[in-house]
Amino acid sequence: MDDKLPGSLGTSTSLSLRLGQVIFSSASLLFMSLGVEFYGFTAFCFLVTAMGLVIPWSFTLAMVDGYAVIMGFPFRQPGILLVIIVGDWVLSLLSLAAACAANGVISFLLDRGGVYNLPNIGGRYQLSVAMAFFSWFLSAVSLLFNLWLLPSL
Amino acid sequence: MDDKLPGSLGTSTSLSLRLGQVIFSSASLLFMSLGVEFYGFTAFCFLVTAMGLVIPWSFTLAMVDGYAVIMGFPFRQPGILLVIIVGDWVLSLLSLAAACAANGVISFLLDRGGVYNLPNIGGRYQLSVAMAFFSWFLSAVSLLFNLWLLPSL
Repeated sequence: MDDKLPGSLGTSTSLSLRLGQVIFSSASLLFMSLGVEFYGFTAFCFLVTAMGLVIPWSFTLAMVDGYAVIMGFPFRQPGILLVIIVGDWVLSLLSLAAACAANGVISFLLDRGGVYNLPNIGGRYQLSVAMAFFSWFLSAVSLLFNLWLLPSL
Repeated sequence: MDDKLPGSLGTSTSLSLRLGQVIFSSASLLFMSLGVEFYGFTAFCFLVTAMGLVIPWSFTLAMVDGYAVIMGFPFRQPGILLVIIVGDWVLSLLSLAAACAANGVISFLLDRGGVYNLPNIGGRYQLSVAMAFFSWFLSAVSLLFNLWLLPSL
């Protein structure tokens, strides 16, 4: 049993991954909802919902990691780890799906906007989607590290 | 070491999962490309590309599974299994992303089509996306079974 696998639950690498997820998903939510136009697009509402689920989840786990780092013991019950892995898996799929759906709509608006006289969208939606992709990537990295740790428990 | 875990590489369950993936992704590709309009939508081209990658991959693995079932021995080198898991993972993420992007564009066209005088799209695009989601689901099930088997090797 490797006690110091970096990136797994309760290490400082995991803490920084979780903080990165919180920052990127908050940035995505902010860029998306700076205004009220996003209500009109189903895909954008989906992205806002997904980010609104990722933020509290990652924030809670960041607090748990910070507590474990400060107290100096990583607590590793297989049951808790399994719950975290399943939650990470669902949320990373959800945020990937939301980012792709929003990206599909944005690329459609940019490609065909001139032809069909569609509403002009600013670059901040693209920024929001990019932030959502970063958040998904960090979440997938956390998931892989925890998944790697699971069989050794 | 559980030798008969259903759904893992070289069993008849795995064979039927792979065949289901081939059928659903072929149906998705057919529904999408029955016509030439899909060239104009980036998300639809993405879906066609992803399905064009999933079909040969799943077909090859279905042949491998069929061979293992007929010959009666499941061959399980960890290296091969790892390659299959990584390939399944990448392809399932890709097909999920493509299906979500296409779905975003379709729901946008259906919601706002009347407002902005967009081209009318038929129900076959929705069928195509539904087939892509089924194919992603089967692919994720195969991935999970193989992932479950990996630590025991």
